[in-house]
This record gives sequence, structure tokens and C-alpha cells, in this order.
Amino acid sequence: MNSWRTAIANSDETNIWIRGYSITDLMRKTTFTDLVFVLHQARLPTEKERRLMDAILIAVADHGAGAPSCATARLAASGNRESLSAAVAAGLLAVGTDHGGAGMACMEMIAAGIEDTRRDGVSVEAAAKKAVTEAATGKRLVPGFGHRVHTRDPRVEVLFDMAREAGLAGNGVAFVRALEAALHERGKAIPTNVDGALAAVLHDLGFAPSAGKFIFMIGRVAGLTAEVAEEYAREKPMRIRFDVDYDGVPPRPVE
Amino acid sequence: MNSWRTAIANSDETNIWIRGYSITDLMRKTTFTDLVFVLHQARLPTEKERRLMDAILIAVADHGAGAPSCATARLAASGNRESLSAAVAAGLLAVGTDHGGAGMACMEMIAAGIEDTRRDGVSVEAAAKKAVTEAATGKRLVPGFGHRVHTRDPRVEVLFDMAREAGLAGNGVAFVRALEAALHERGKAIPTNVDGALAAVLHDLGFAPSAGKFIFMIGRVAGLTAEVAEEYAREKPMRIRFDVDYDGVPPRPVE
Amino acid sequence: MNSWRTAIANSDETNIWIRGYSITDLMRKTTFTDLVFVLHQARLPTEKERRLMDAILIAVADHGAGAPSCATARLAASGNRESLSAAVAAGLLAVGTDHGGAGMACMEMIAAGIEDTRRDGVSVEAAAKKAVTEAATGKRLVPGFGHRVHTRDPRVEVLFDMAREAGLAGNGVAFVRALEAALHERGKAIPTNVDGALAAVLHDLGFAPSAGKFIFMIGRVAGLTAEVAEEYAREKPMRIRFDVDYDGVPPRPVE
Amino acid sequence: MNSWRTAIANSDETNIWIRGYSITDLMRKTTFTDLVFVLHQARLPTEKERRLMDAILIAVADHGAGAPSCATARLAASGNRESLSAAVAAGLLAVGTDHGGAGMACMEMIAAGIEDTRRDGVSVEAAAKKAVTEAATGKRLVPGFGHRVHTRDPRVEVLFDMAREAGLAGNGVAFVRALEAALHERGKAIPTNVDGALAAVLHDLGFAPSAGKFIFMIGRVAGLTAEVAEEYAREKPMRIRFDVDYDGVPPRPVE
Repeated sequence: MNSWRTAIANSDETNIWIRGYSITDLMRKTTFTDLVFVLHQARLPTEKERRLMDAILIAVADHGAGAPSCATARLAASGNRESLSAAVAAGLLAVGTDHGGAGMACMEMIAAGIEDTRRDGVSVEAAAKKAVTEAATGKRLVPGFGHRVHTRDPRVEVLFDMAREAGLAGNGVAFVRALEAALHERGKAIPTNVDGALAAVLHDLGFAPSAGKFIFMIGRVAGLTAEVAEEYAREKPMRIRFDVDYDGVPPRPVE
Repeated sequence: MNSWRTAIANSDETNIWIRGYSITDLMRKTTFTDLVFVLHQARLPTEKERRLMDAILIAVADHGAGAPSCATARLAASGNRESLSAAVAAGLLAVGTDHGGAGMACMEMIAAGIEDTRRDGVSVEAAAKKAVTEAATGKRLVPGFGHRVHTRDPRVEVLFDMAREAGLAGNGVAFVRALEAALHERGKAIPTNVDGALAAVLHDLGFAPSAGKFIFMIGRVAGLTAEVAEEYAREKPMRIRFDVDYDGVPPRPVE
Repeated sequence: MNSWRTAIANSDETNIWIRGYSITDLMRKTTFTDLVFVLHQARLPTEKERRLMDAILIAVADHGAGAPSCATARLAASGNRESLSAAVAAGLLAVGTDHGGAGMACMEMIAAGIEDTRRDGVSVEAAAKKAVTEAATGKRLVPGFGHRVHTRDPRVEVLFDMAREAGLAGNGVAFVRALEAALHERGKAIPTNVDGALAAVLHDLGFAPSAGKFIFMIGRVAGLTAEVAEEYAREKPMRIRFDVDYDGVPPRPVE
Repeated sequence: MNSWRTAIANSDETNIWIRGYSITDLMRKTTFTDLVFVLHQARLPTEKERRLMDAILIAVADHGAGAPSCATARLAASGNRESLSAAVAAGLLAVGTDHGGAGMACMEMIAAGIEDTRRDGVSVEAAAKKAVTEAATGKRLVPGFGHRVHTRDPRVEVLFDMAREAGLAGNGVAFVRALEAALHERGKAIPTNVDGALAAVLHDLGFAPSAGKFIFMIGRVAGLTAEVAEEYAREKPMRIRFDVDYDGVPPRPVE
């Protein structure tokens, strides 16, 4: 009843295997990025696949101390200096719907769109147009587009170029490109952001939509460790004081 | 091997007991604050003990949106709107050494000081003086004293007064008072803060030092839920942008 | 840009107010459960409202070391003994859709059902029947019903009885009772569980649906602190060993 | 007051730099493991350094579903299916003193020991012997030695061999080897475990002791994402039921 079924890792007294690969073989012959691929797809990536994965993990690792995940980790460290993992975990908890979550949402939209093309025999462009129209009707944003800081996100073209140069740009990249065109056609010149590019490429690398978040987390945790290390090294505890504007009930008696 | 030994809660198909008390009896006849006492001390508090516990839990519940725990919870909610518990947990992770942790540290100092009085037959005043001298020698702050905002923390006198009025002020209160006097004597007029007052009273209520943190967490989580509810209700996701001053390595090539 | 707007807590150098009430007044004249109500509803509860709130908080505080939240907290403590808040926060992270989350889902169903009765002039019974039919059509469970351990949850009748005796059982209790009847009529004799009872009563006390999770968390964190304290006191670190059944790829070479 | 000083990441409207390197250069020319090194050491590693880093990150990524971090993440996912990051963060919270924390503790011991050799002109062997004697006197375990499952951890020799082959085994490896010999001399044939090997190699790669935990976390979060993905894919929510042995106060009345 309490046993844990798993197909990930196995070990005996003198060996450990991950997805069937001996850990010592993995250590000697592969990279950490290979292992991330192995953990989620149960096979080693090709050289080209690995280089794309590296680019994605690098793209999302850090972006500035003001991002919610980084600021959350640093604030937790500001109050709690007894546990490095507590601060890093607090940073991860800021990752979700609105921060690091658009990749997964975009991957779900890609998967649904590609399924449309298969089932209904429509083109990628038509499926993308339909998805954009449905989002507009439901007053939902299309995930993976727009950024409040970057007018043109430097990471997007690099990811798309690398995918194309590697011959790995497939339906996912085509669909996200078609989404951008469909948005443009509706008068919304909103560029693809890093979440959208990551979603397109991860889809073409064969990942499930949840990887949109998981891969973001793996990359981001590297950045968070550096942010927490810097907070410990450079700042005093409890350094943060925010200006608070109180606009609630004025003083009143308890009675 | 996998069974969990516990002396806290027990249940069968139709009943649940906490520390031996039937949960339906507890629900009908006691308060949540009684239950907090039961969970940590395995007995119901007296009426006077309960009133002190209520005052302590109220004292630490919230204090303003700018405290690390509250700001951390709100920042996590700002990025991640998929899980209320993730935001509240992030806030709790800011509780530790420097925020909500001084109570536990002060309770450990009280416990050691009272042990001194027993073992060496010295007075509470002498033990407190020794503790303050040792802290000064080791260049450590005395936990439970000083506050960056309040010159005089409004919660401190109320807690001490309530303990005295209830006839529950014992060695813990005496020791913290003696610490304050010893600090004053060394030219440091640093008033007792809410952590010190909480520590004194929890000690006299029979709690172990770890309760200094646990009781803070129970009180604070109430405030955190309200902070997170307000963040959802009043703010858009990703609202926070911090000014970041970069002072690291200037641009350089990868080679 | 970085200021935090809030209507919860305010302070100056010598005072703190929660929802306009001076914290020293709250400490002297009210209970922690009153404060929970104040934090979420911006007014003090009546005596009868407070007693119901106490019963709810007690009902959800703990239930046995094997619940996901308690086991998660204890497992975290088993690996990480440097931070009490890390272990308690880990426990809170197990609270969500399937553990402590049905109350919120049920409150959303109640709110929608009561809105139906207002808009369409139908009876509570008709609205409940419609909700159960819709859930069955969509193959969704009705949240707040059924329990894997208790055939009859001892907390449910007590909560309903206390609400009725206090004259505080309103539309929420009526709707949940009607849901149970509608389920029974469809041949599903699934009793209301503690989440459903909590949802009914919190609705009638005027809380928003999110309180279904927030109030659960406040109660549960009290239990979690006791579970973590017991883990530290009674168990060695790293005590847990699960039996793991590996059924993945057999050993293979890296090539 | 609210600005965040940082030397890690910087960005403007069209560029992002990490430690001065343009993110697009990093994406095109380096690996994720390079970036981890850049984040913590502000320079790119050599090819040999990177291969050692890869081996370390692979070594700690996963080890079986029964480890506290993996089991904690899966348990949190069992109760809370609304947030992938909540489950992964819960797993990270199990990382600390007793799980994933020995590497940092061992790195602190190495740093102190190497400092001894510099200051007192003693040999690495003498410094290690002194450290082991002090630990024995204080009844403290030497961190980085011993494992409850593996009689001989397969990862240890590989890490040491790779460091030696790369010409990167320095004082850190020598000190840990000397600790093992000193333990053996005292009749304790406790082999170096993966934490000790990781500590030795990270020290020789120039990392600060805190990296013992940070690098572990980066590696482990990769494993945690796969564990959580598997929990979602293979198990029903709330699947876990532990056997609980209650040995507390027997039933008693509330009075």
C-alpha cells in the first residue's frame, strides 16, 4: 500500500540507474542537459536536440532581480536565514499562471491546434486563426505573446533560428508563427515572447505541455540559487521596507 | 517500517480524537485557541491561560503588508494565481531567524538562564546579567529586544500587563524584565519587543522554545490568508516591478 | 510604483490597527478566532458566529499523521532539520484540489446555486438538483461529499447542529442538504463530508468561496506545527524508507 | 529604498546580460551547465571544469522515489493538483541538514582544514586528523561519510577519477581522502559518500561552501520535476494512506 511505483530511478547496493542508464555511465558520457531530457523523455537527446535544450534552459534561468520569482526568493531570504532551500523554494512558488506558466498554456494550445489539423484536415494557419478567434471571443489573452519590458525579446529569434538551423523546427514552431500572423491580422502586433518560443520548440522536441513549466523551473532554479547567494552576501537581513498605503477602515473601537 | 507513530490525533470510522479529546466535544465546548494549546501541551488551558494565548496569537497575526512574510506571500501570488496555498506557504518561508524567529531564540535564552538559577542558586537578575554580558562578549544581539519601526511596541506592555493581571507572570517574564534592565545598565536602552514579550509569556505558559516559532506561524498564517485574498482582489498579476541597480561585470564576449 | 496598497493593517511608531481596530484593544477584548473573522470580513463576529468559526477551525486542524499535509510536513522535517517553517510550509503545499480544497469548490457551487435561485426564482431544491445533474453529465464529482475513511464523518452533524441551534443555518446549509438529497435520489447515498459542511456554514457566515481554503489552512497549520514538533521530538532524521517498485526501462548502455 | 542591487543579471529593452555575457551569446555558444558556473563564479568554466560540473549535477538529480525530497514532492502532488510548482517546491523543502546538506557542511570542514594548513603550516593529513578528532570529541558525525543504502556509492569513485583525470583534483579531494584515512585509523571504516565527493570537487572548482547545497538543489529539481510528472500521470490523487500507530492519551472528556 505504501510502496512507490516508479519508472524513473532504480538502485541497489552498488548501482543507480536513471531510466535504465547506469548513473556512472551518465556521469562519464553525458551532460546535465542530456539528463533533463532523459528524465522527461526516457531517451538521450541527439546532439542537436541537446543544444536546443541548453538554449532553452539558459533563456529562462534569470532575467533580473525584479522578476517575481527572484524577488520572492530574496525577500524570503531577507527574513529567514536559516535555510537556503526555504528561500529557493519560495522563489519557485512564484512560478505559475502569470510567471513562467505561459509556456505550458501555449503548449496546450499548440497541442490542441495540431490535433485540429489532424482531425479536420485543416492547415496550421487555419487552426491558428481559429485559436486566436476563440481567444478573442472569450476575451482571453493568447499565451506566449507580449512582454511588458522587451519590445522585441532577444531570446525569441535565437531560439527559432537555432531550431531551424538544427532542422528541428516542426509543427510547434509553425503553429506559433501562425498565431503571431493571425494576431497581426486582427490588428494586434504582439510579438511572440520567450514563453511562446520555448513552447514551440519544446513541442517540436516531443515534450508534453507540462514540460512548459517543468523546464522553466529547472532553468529558473539555477538563477534563484545565485539570487539567494547574492542576497546573503550583499544585504543585511530584514533589509526591505515597503511603503504601505493604507486605505481601509479608519480607527474604531472594539465593542 | 512505514507506519507513523503519533500521540496527536487518532481516528476510527466514526470518531476522531485529538490528544484523547473527542473532536466533537472540542468543537462544541472549546475554542480554536484551546485546541492550539491542546496540540502543543496535551491538556486544555485554563480560562486565564487561554486569554493570554489569544492575545499572543492576535499580536503576531499581521502588522502591515511590508513585513517580509506578507510581502513574500503577495509577490508569490503576483506571479502564481493557480494555488492559494502556494502563496501562503511562500509567506511562511520568510519566517525564520530574522522574522518571527527571535521569540524562539529568546525562549532558549530564558530556558538556559532559568536553568542557571536552579543549578547555581543565583538570582534571576544575576543570570540575566550574565546572559547579557556573554552576548556582548560574543558580539551577539540579545534576541527579543529592539525594533526598527516602533520606539515602543504597543503590544509589549499589554502582554506583560495581561500576564500579571492573570497571575501567570513567572520566571519567564521576570527574566526578560531582568534582561532589559541589564541592557539598560550597560547603556543600551533597548526596549523589549513583541518577540521578547511573547517568549516570556509562552515560557511561563509552559511551552518549549520551538513554540516561539510555531505559535508565531499559527498567528501569522491568519494574516497571510488575508494578505493573499487582498492581492487577488485588488491587484493585477505581475504588478510588481522593482528598480534594479546592476553593478556587476560590464558586457563582455563569450569566448 | 512599489508601494503596497492595503486595507488590512496599518501602523505608526506607537500603534498598530487591524481593519481599524487597535491591536491592543483586540488583544485585551477579543479572541484569535474573532481576529480571523475580522481579517476576512472587516467586522467582529457575534458570539454565535465566533462559536461556529471556532468549531470549523477545530474540525480541520488535524485528523491523523497520515493525511497528505501532515505526512508531507513530517517528511520534509525528516530531511531538513534547519527550519521549522520549511517543514510547516511543505505541509501547506499539500493543501489544494484534493486535500482541503473541496470546501472552496463546494462554496463556489453553493454561490452559483443560490444565484440561480435568485435569478430564476427556482427553489433551493431545484437548483441543487440541477447542479447534481450537471456534475453527473460532466462526470464530475460533487465537491463536499464522500470520504474514504469515515462512513459518517463525526464533524458534519455537529457543525450542522451548531449552525441550526445558533439560528445561523441559512441558504448554504439548505443547499448542501438539498445536494445530498439530490445525490440520494440518483441512487448515490454519499454523505456530506467535513468540506461540504464547512462550505455550507462558511457561506452562511458571509465568507467568499476562497475562504473554504483559507480557513482550512489556518486550522490545519495548527495541526502541522504539532506534527512537526512531534517529528523532531520522536524521530531520527531520514527515518523514512519507502519500498520502491521500479517498473521502467531495464538497464541499457549509454551510446 | 526599494531598489535591488545586483551583479547577476541586467537587461534593457532589447538585451539581457548574465554576469556581463549577452544571453543570446550564451544560448548559442554555451551549455546550461556553463551557465550554472557563470551564475555562481562570474566566469565561464573550462571544458574540463564543465565536464566535472555535469557529472556532479547528474550525480544528485535523482536516486529513487523514496528519498525525502522525492517522496515529499509526490505527497504534496497527491493532495494538491493545482500547481506543479507547489509540488516541486515542497520537494525542495526536504533538502537541508540531513538530505542534501552534508555537502555544504563538508565544504565548510574542508575550508577550515585548508585554512589550518595555511595558517599553521601543517600537512593536509594532520589537519584532517585534527578535524576527525574534534568531531569525535564533540560526538559529531563527519559530514560526507557513510550511507544507509550503498555500501560503496558508485558515484564517489567516478567523481574522484574524473577530477584526477582532468587534473582538477586539488586540496579538496586530498583533504576528503585524508578524512577517510583518519576515520579508518580510528577504526571507523566509513566510506566517503556522494556528498563528500561533491564537496571535495566543488571546493577544488572554486565554489563557496553554500554551493554544496545550491548545486545539489539545481540537480535535484530536475529529478523532482520528473517525479511530479510521474505522480500526475500514474497515480490518483490522495492515493497515499499511511498506517498510523497512535500511542498518546486515551479517550477522555472535555471538562
